[in-house]
Amino acid sequence: MARGRTERVLIARSGHGARPDSVIVEEPLEIRLDGHPVSTTMRTPGHDFELAVGFVHAEGLLAGARVHQVRYCATGSAVDTGFNVVEVGTGGRAPTPAPRLTITTSACGLCGSAAIDDLAGRLAPLEVRPDIDAAVLAAVPGRVRTMQTLFEATGAVHAAAPFDPATGEVWLVREDIGRHNAVDKVVGRLLLDGRLPATGAGLFVSGRASFEMVQKAWAAGFGLVAAVSGPSSLAVGTARRANLALVGFLRDSSMNVYSPAPLD
Amino acid sequence: MARGRTERVLIARSGHGARPDSVIVEEPLEIRLDGHPVSTTMRTPGHDFELAVGFVHAEGLLAGARVHQVRYCATGSAVDTGFNVVEVGTGGRAPTPAPRLTITTSACGLCGSAAIDDLAGRLAPLEVRPDIDAAVLAAVPGRVRTMQTLFEATGAVHAAAPFDPATGEVWLVREDIGRHNAVDKVVGRLLLDGRLPATGAGLFVSGRASFEMVQKAWAAGFGLVAAVSGPSSLAVGTARRANLALVGFLRDSSMNVYSPAPLD
Repeated sequence: MARGRTERVLIARSGHGARPDSVIVEEPLEIRLDGHPVSTTMRTPGHDFELAVGFVHAEGLLAGARVHQVRYCATGSAVDTGFNVVEVGTGGRAPTPAPRLTITTSACGLCGSAAIDDLAGRLAPLEVRPDIDAAVLAAVPGRVRTMQTLFEATGAVHAAAPFDPATGEVWLVREDIGRHNAVDKVVGRLLLDGRLPATGAGLFVSGRASFEMVQKAWAAGFGLVAAVSGPSSLAVGTARRANLALVGFLRDSSMNVYSPAPLD
Repeated sequence: MARGRTERVLIARSGHGARPDSVIVEEPLEIRLDGHPVSTTMRTPGHDFELAVGFVHAEGLLAGARVHQVRYCATGSAVDTGFNVVEVGTGGRAPTPAPRLTITTSACGLCGSAAIDDLAGRLAPLEVRPDIDAAVLAAVPGRVRTMQTLFEATGAVHAAAPFDPATGEVWLVREDIGRHNAVDKVVGRLLLDGRLPATGAGLFVSGRASFEMVQKAWAAGFGLVAAVSGPSSLAVGTARRANLALVGFLRDSSMNVYSPAPLD
């Protein structure tokens, strides 16, 4: 079912009076795994199956189980909001998800290094870390931009895109009001296509690189994350632990390399 | 206790080799209300009490109860991560928080208009909607910018600021890796100062205006939200329902007015 991703509203533009304007659509999506609700996220409709699959993968909820089925919980009634509920089915092979009110903590309690330790407990360091070719990376934002149709229409939406770090070829672009959702949609697409782990691949993100962005990239096996804005301290620490290349402030021909550490 | 908000890491800058760089710190914060964990958010340390108080207020968890005490759950041990746990106390007067795995839904199920209906069920439309003075608003981003010390250092952090829509005077600025956290910190500060509801005041945000940003502003009584980037469809709908003025793409002297609707 095609669902609107932009919506026309009548607005006033300074000095121009009333005119129609496109805004990005935001709607809740409940994600279920084998019948258990695991998250409700505010997202831009479209690629919902990818978002749901990418989310449960990035959170480690599949634990290696294969996705058998993805479907809307729609009943076909006249006012059907089942299109805001997506069920990922593994035939009961995924473990029953635990309530996620608090972060799992390890020795040091609730702190960033414990969060990295938790990840390292279930994800091995990446074996392939692509070389960083500045000239290749510099061309990626422009290529992604030409594929950002929702950004073109609304100016207020994030993008994520997998690409080849050797050639700069961009494979696909996903857009969403939430930057995490855009990454989940990319990961879900690759999983559904049987292309995970994304060994040796790069992941472009249009905003900042926070802990969760690097977590999702690591879980999907990306060897390089390139962000238009800067990373957090925890994102840098996580990338270095994962043996994942992390580039920030990728703008025109300049960029910062946060991982690997320069003297490694 | 003063906690680091930026951290120096050694990075490689394209064409310049290794050099130290400041990145914004990201650490988990668990928020508790009268002993019950209600949320864990990845935040930039600093103004943690404001963040915790603002969060429980915006989510409607106080339900009118007065905040008696805010404290870290620190024990004074050598490796103490209690500074990543903040307890808001109302002496048991706030209702016991329910688990938040799913959004409360009303008649139409899980959809954006139900989310607005839920808000309208507990928040009355604002009685005071400030006039939008384009010349005054145009000066606000520049004023906030001079107070964004963490952005100056790292280039990757959001800001929120309450201001006077009649004069453009900016009262204070809060910064955080999470844009929701920056707003919660502002709301918490005003609450702790006895300045809520913020009737007739404006709230500036450095990014986009999504549903949750407008929700938080409405709950705090702000009559105007001014965002540097664009709003979502749901943010526009919520602002119009709340009788809250919503300005987007506030850049130089241009801006879009999304609420009130131009023909209202």
